[in-house]
Formats: sequence, C-alpha cells, structure tokens
Amino acid sequence: MEKEPNYQPPEDLLKFLRIPTVSAMSEHAEDMQKAAQQLVEKFKSLGFEASLLLSEGHPAVFAQSYKTTGEDAPIVAVYGHYDVQDVGEISDWQSDPFSPTEMNGNLVGRGTADDKCQFWTWIHAAEELLKDNGKLPVNMKFLIEGEEELASKNLPEILQRAKDLLKADIWVVSDSHSLSENEPVLTYGLRGIVYLQLDLKTLAKDAHSGTYGGNAPNAANILVEMLSSLKDPDTQRIEIPGFYDDVREVSDEERERLNKFPFDEKAIKRETGAKFVRGEEEFTPQERAGMRPTLDINGIWGGYQGEGPKTIIPAVASAKFSMRLVPDQKSKSVLEQVTNYLKSITPEGADLTITSLGTGEPFLVDTRSKYFAKARLAMTRAFGNQPLEAMEGGSIPVTGLIKTIFGKDTLLMGYGLPDDGLHAPNEKFSLKMYDNGVRTNIHFLKLLAQE
Amino acid sequence: MEKEPNYQPPEDLLKFLRIPTVSAMSEHAEDMQKAAQQLVEKFKSLGFEASLLLSEGHPAVFAQSYKTTGEDAPIVAVYGHYDVQDVGEISDWQSDPFSPTEMNGNLVGRGTADDKCQFWTWIHAAEELLKDNGKLPVNMKFLIEGEEELASKNLPEILQRAKDLLKADIWVVSDSHSLSENEPVLTYGLRGIVYLQLDLKTLAKDAHSGTYGGNAPNAANILVEMLSSLKDPDTQRIEIPGFYDDVREVSDEERERLNKFPFDEKAIKRETGAKFVRGEEEFTPQERAGMRPTLDINGIWGGYQGEGPKTIIPAVASAKFSMRLVPDQKSKSVLEQVTNYLKSITPEGADLTITSLGTGEPFLVDTRSKYFAKARLAMTRAFGNQPLEAMEGGSIPVTGLIKTIFGKDTLLMGYGLPDDGLHAPNEKFSLKMYDNGVRTNIHFLKLLAQE
Repeated sequence: MEKEPNYQPPEDLLKFLRIPTVSAMSEHAEDMQKAAQQLVEKFKSLGFEASLLLSEGHPAVFAQSYKTTGEDAPIVAVYGHYDVQDVGEISDWQSDPFSPTEMNGNLVGRGTADDKCQFWTWIHAAEELLKDNGKLPVNMKFLIEGEEELASKNLPEILQRAKDLLKADIWVVSDSHSLSENEPVLTYGLRGIVYLQLDLKTLAKDAHSGTYGGNAPNAANILVEMLSSLKDPDTQRIEIPGFYDDVREVSDEERERLNKFPFDEKAIKRETGAKFVRGEEEFTPQERAGMRPTLDINGIWGGYQGEGPKTIIPAVASAKFSMRLVPDQKSKSVLEQVTNYLKSITPEGADLTITSLGTGEPFLVDTRSKYFAKARLAMTRAFGNQPLEAMEGGSIPVTGLIKTIFGKDTLLMGYGLPDDGLHAPNEKFSLKMYDNGVRTNIHFLKLLAQE
Repeated sequence: MEKEPNYQPPEDLLKFLRIPTVSAMSEHAEDMQKAAQQLVEKFKSLGFEASLLLSEGHPAVFAQSYKTTGEDAPIVAVYGHYDVQDVGEISDWQSDPFSPTEMNGNLVGRGTADDKCQFWTWIHAAEELLKDNGKLPVNMKFLIEGEEELASKNLPEILQRAKDLLKADIWVVSDSHSLSENEPVLTYGLRGIVYLQLDLKTLAKDAHSGTYGGNAPNAANILVEMLSSLKDPDTQRIEIPGFYDDVREVSDEERERLNKFPFDEKAIKRETGAKFVRGEEEFTPQERAGMRPTLDINGIWGGYQGEGPKTIIPAVASAKFSMRLVPDQKSKSVLEQVTNYLKSITPEGADLTITSLGTGEPFLVDTRSKYFAKARLAMTRAFGNQPLEAMEGGSIPVTGLIKTIFGKDTLLMGYGLPDDGLHAPNEKFSLKMYDNGVRTNIHFLKLLAQE
C-alpha cells in the first residue's frame, strides 16, 4: 500500500482563521466581506468559477469546478460556513482567538473546528487532486455561507434563488465530530432548532421595590414564571401543548444502535465539567441527545446587574431560549405552538415581544444509499476503522433545507473531536484530524467517480 | 398671623448634590469621602461639633449642637443618608443627574428626594433658628450615613460603638413621602428587608446547546426554576416554609385606617406606568404595601446577552432578589428560612453561592406618644392640613436599629412626593416641599421645647 502524505493546514487557511468573522456582531460586517472575498480568490486560484450569493445578511460564497472528467460525472456539493461564534470573555483564552496557535497537536482559535478547518479539508482535497491529475474525478460545487451561527436565517432564500446553480447529486458537510483520531463517525441524524428572544415590559420605568413591592408587576418575576412553565422541573418534559405530537417513534433497533455511541454520563461530565447530568429519566444520555427535543435558556437579563443591592422592580426583562427539534417535528409548527403558548400565559397588560432568531429542520439521512456506503468506505480507508453511525444533538440547518429544496441527501462527515470546545473559549481543531479529513475526502471523491 | 418666609435649597446644598455619591460603586469611594467632609464642614460652620464615624464601609457623619437653651432641653436626633442610587442609563435623563436643575417647580437630579434635600431641611431649620435666636430651642444631633442604599450594612456596628454619643429622646427621619404639596403624611410603619444575591454554577464553561442539550445542566434554566418556586404565580404568596409565621395580625381598625390612604390601583398605574396591578387577591393595594411582605427579583443575568442567537448552555447564572418584611418578622429568621429553602431545592452537584447584600427590620411607631402628637401638630401648621397616618412599603433600616439599640421611637416626616422617581431616571424633589419641610421642622423643634 502506498504511503499517504500528511496534510497540514496551509498558510492561506491560517490567514483565513485570522479574520474575526463573528456574524452576530454588526461591528464585524466588514470582516465578513473580507473573508468571503478571500474565499472567492482562493477558489479562482484553483480554477473554479466563484462568486458571492447576496442576501439581506452576510454573503455566501459559491464556487464550481470545470476541471472534471466530463459532464456525466456525478456532482458533489460541499456546504460549509465561514462565520464563527462570539469569543466570549477574552481573558478565558490562552491565546488570541484570532491568532491560530499550534498547541499539543491542535490548532487553537475561534472557528478552527466550527467550521473553517473542517470545510477547508475539501478545498485541500480538491487542490491535491488537481495537483496530481490536473483535473478532478467528479464535478465539485461549494457553498460556504456566512450565517450558520445566526441559524442560517437567509439561507432558504439564497438556496431558492440559486436552485439551478446548486444542482448536485449528493451534498457533503464537515461540521460535526468524530469520536477520536481513529474512531470516525458518520452522522445520519441531526436536530432542528427554533431560537427565540423574549422581551417583556411591565412598567414605564423601574419602580422602587419598597413603595410598589406587592403591587407593581415585576418584569423579571413574570418572565421567570413564564420561562419556568415551559418545562417540568421534575420530568424535564417540555410543557408547550402539542410539542411532542410529531416526535418520531424510534425503533428498538435504532435505539440500540444509538446507545452504542459512547456518549454516556461520564463523557458528558468530563467534557462539560458538570458534576451531574440532567434530562428525561426514561431516556439514556445518547437517546436524549439524538432522538429527544430540548429547551434551553441561552441567555437571560433584566434589572440591576451591578455591584451591591439596588432596590428596584425591573420594568423590562429579556431572555433568549431555543428548542432543539427531532424528526418529524416541523420548525414552523413548533414556532406557532410556542408563540401561542407564550401569549396565552402573558398577563394581560404586560407587553411581550417575541422575536424569532432563526429556525432549522431536523434531519435524517438514508443510511442504505450508495453515497452513504462510499462515505463509510472512504472513512474506513483513511482512519483505518469503520465509522460509527450516529444521531447527534446539534443542528445544521442547511441539511433540512437541502432535503426540502433539492430533494437530496447530505452526508455528514465530521472531523471535529468531542472536546473541541465549540462556541467556548480555547476552541481547537486536531491537526491529525485535519490530515484524516483531507485523506478521507480524497478517497471519497475518487470513490464517487467509480459508479 | 405672621407671614412665614419661603425657604429654598441653598447654594451649599446644590454643591452637595453635585457629588456623585453612589455608594454601591467602588469607583465613587472618593466622592463619598468628599461629601462626608463637606457635611462635617457645614455642621462646624453652624457651631456644631462634627466628626466622621468610621467603619469598614463609607463613613457616617455625626454632629451635635452646643448652642441650646440648656442641658434639660430634650435631645432630638436627625437621621439621613448622603449616599444615592446608581443613575442607570444616562440617556434616560433629561439633565445631568449630578447637575441639579430647576424644572417646573422641581429640583431634578440623583439624590434630590432620596435623601439629600430631605435631610437638609433639618440643617436649614437649625440654621434659621440659630440666625433668629443665636441658639436652638432643643439639643440637636445628626447622624448622616453613607450606606443606606447598601441596606445600611455597617450601621449596626456604628450605632453600637457610638451608643453614648447618640443618646437622644426622639429620632426624626425625612426619607419618605407625603401625598401632595398640601397633604402631609406621617408614616408610622415601614417594612424591613432581606436582600440576597444568588450565583449558580453548573458547568466548567458554557456548553454547546446542540451537543449537550437534554443532558448538561443549564444554570439559567435551574436558576429560573428555583426563583419561580419562591412564589406562587396565582396567589402571589411566598412559598418559603415558615415565611408568614411571624406576620402580625392587623386589626380591622388599623386596616380601615390603612385603606383611607389614597394608594389605589389607579395611583400605582399612574405612578409606575403599569397597565395592571399584581398582588395577593385578598388584600387591597394599601394593605399589600403596608402590611404584607413581598419578594421581588431586582436583577437577573446569565448566558448570552448580545445581538442575535448564540447556542450555548450557560455555565453560570445569577440573580439579586429581596424580600420586604412586615412586623413581627425578623430579618435573621427570614434569612435563615430562605437560605435553607434555597439549599434544599438546589440540585445536587450544582454550585450555589448565596450572599446577603443587607438586612433591615420592619418598623412600627407608637402613634399615641407626645412626640408623635408634636410632629402631627407641626405638619398641620406648616401644611395647613392634618397629616394622614400611613404604613408604607419601603424600608429605612435605621428605624429598626434605633428601636433595638436605643429603645427609642423614630418619627418619619417625609417631604418627598409620590412621583419623585426614587432610584429611577429624572429623580426630582419639589421646591414647595422643601419649603414645607423647613417650616415643619422649625415648628417641630419649637414645639419640642414646650414640655
């Protein structure tokens, strides 16, 4: 067997990681443009046709190769996202989040695992194949969006408008994770999401808690009551009427396969630092993450947050919360259910604003397709082990959209690792996994060409 | 009848209002010293003996007059506080909070009503009497503290240490409000307070809500559950075991007197901008404010509070909340009850820190004493109307301490108005009420001298 080379993040990827593409913060709008432009240039340098797909939000980058074996060759489309999460407290980082730094076999920096290095493994694979043969074994397209961390809010419109351009036989996404450097994972299910912000106003201005306490409606108290009524603290079941109606029955066989995935209490505690795990008692941790919907408060604020005491009744209180959905829940129905429920429990006279910050559909792929088989084989060859097949807790909104708009499946070939610290300080990406990724992708592209 | 002069805030009071004495913010520590020093100088200029009473916190100012009619004359002690609340959002102010500005018959600025102008009416009264007669009709003492907005946390120690110095026959406090410029109020009851901060930690760091949602304990969700379990949303009763055990039975006669006070739903809505009033159904608004304890969240925060969505499970969430107590509740027992209850509902493995940010005892004064009668008469003479006698919802921790440590009553002669906006933007104090205050105080000091 021929010895494969060891692929490492190239200089142009490091340069790309240095751009603070925080899509949620308007102060980074220019950085978003800069990053998109860099991608366009990169694709052009490989002989791809490349351009920006514009919307109200941050642009997406589209690219397609003409250097293929022929028009009959299958078309594979790669989805990725170049936007990243806010870095949080800068003091929690051991190195500058936007100066990618090599440490103990990892590249540390915001966006390394989620998702810049991951989708770059496909660019790198294409580059290698072009270098070796001057052409690609299949037709390739790329769609790299800039709003995944904003729940891909403008992606549906972009996909609809570029429907012809984006025609493909199979989609691939590298934005999930494997188990370890020699235990690859092929994700066949993902959760959807409905993400909301609530702003509750009860008074014209903060009131004195002595004079008005016992009479004036307290926005923080009422918001807390409303939020607490969304979920039963004992059963951890979500109490929004109708919420579980469309949750798919999962077969015993599938549950068994799910429970083989080594995502147990011990792993969760180790990875999050939690001293306890909390969820629906009648389900295992694997089942809770893979086949059960959730509701989490992502942020909450109201009233006085400074030093010492301030004796006010807050006039306004706000919260962000999100629900992860599973097949066959539909984000539209859930959004309707939760909105109706919240309105029904808002005291008359209180002023509630509900803002959707994004939705995405749950996703389930056909594990018996030829494409899935080729992905399995490519991973086995590159990692030396057959991949575990998993349902995961995260959401990649595009997967549901691709199914709905193009009727095509997406293969989730994740090269992250469980301890990458996505959305957290000191996010990292394993250099060994980068190499695994590039090699898997090369195998996969070659296998695809063999009908 | 001799025409009384019209007293207005003097230049030295305006200068005093310009010092941003926000006791809760460490950056204003120097301003606190400066203000205390200005008071000492002011008292000395009137021929008072004046000094600072030091503690761990901001200093209190003590002063006593020697220019009296004799040693047998009664001693009246005036309590006030020179610290103020944080100004909140500066953009909500129509004028600089620390540039006292005359507008429509009011002086607008932080600390005008709470409490700088109010206690200054006593300095002004003393100054007038000294100008007229060269001496005071009674012995006067002043105690002006710097930590009332911090729930007077170091005052017990200061009072204990200066027990001899602070000996007096009767105490007066002007830190509450009347109904209007010709409807004075004599407050005979106040609520106590227990003010807490909760910091809950469940994870080492924020976790991804997709990967870990359904398993990882969410600090914001758990805090919301815990806070919501403190109070029944329907009955609005506090559900901490034993909380109501020591609440005094109020006689029908007292309830009737309480309900004469024009603090109804309409007034509360007008003053706070609320479209609805919320409290225990079996009590009137007056009763809720005067004779019922409360629980209000004063501030809450945790997780992501920026623009857009961020899909995290917060590792940490915090809240400030306070309970107003009524006779005969004791802050010590309530603090114990709430601490035990919170500990009992904290999930095992979650890390809860409970910090007391101050306590104060509820207060009830003897309305049949000669001092109360003289205050009633002084108000009647200055305002032209007999005062309403009220139980109010606020807390002035010193009143309980004076009762406990010295065994003396405190007269609450409030010159604020209901719409002064204490602790809110555009706090103001009526110039007419300043004049009413100085004139009432002069009458009262003269009446005190007539045994």
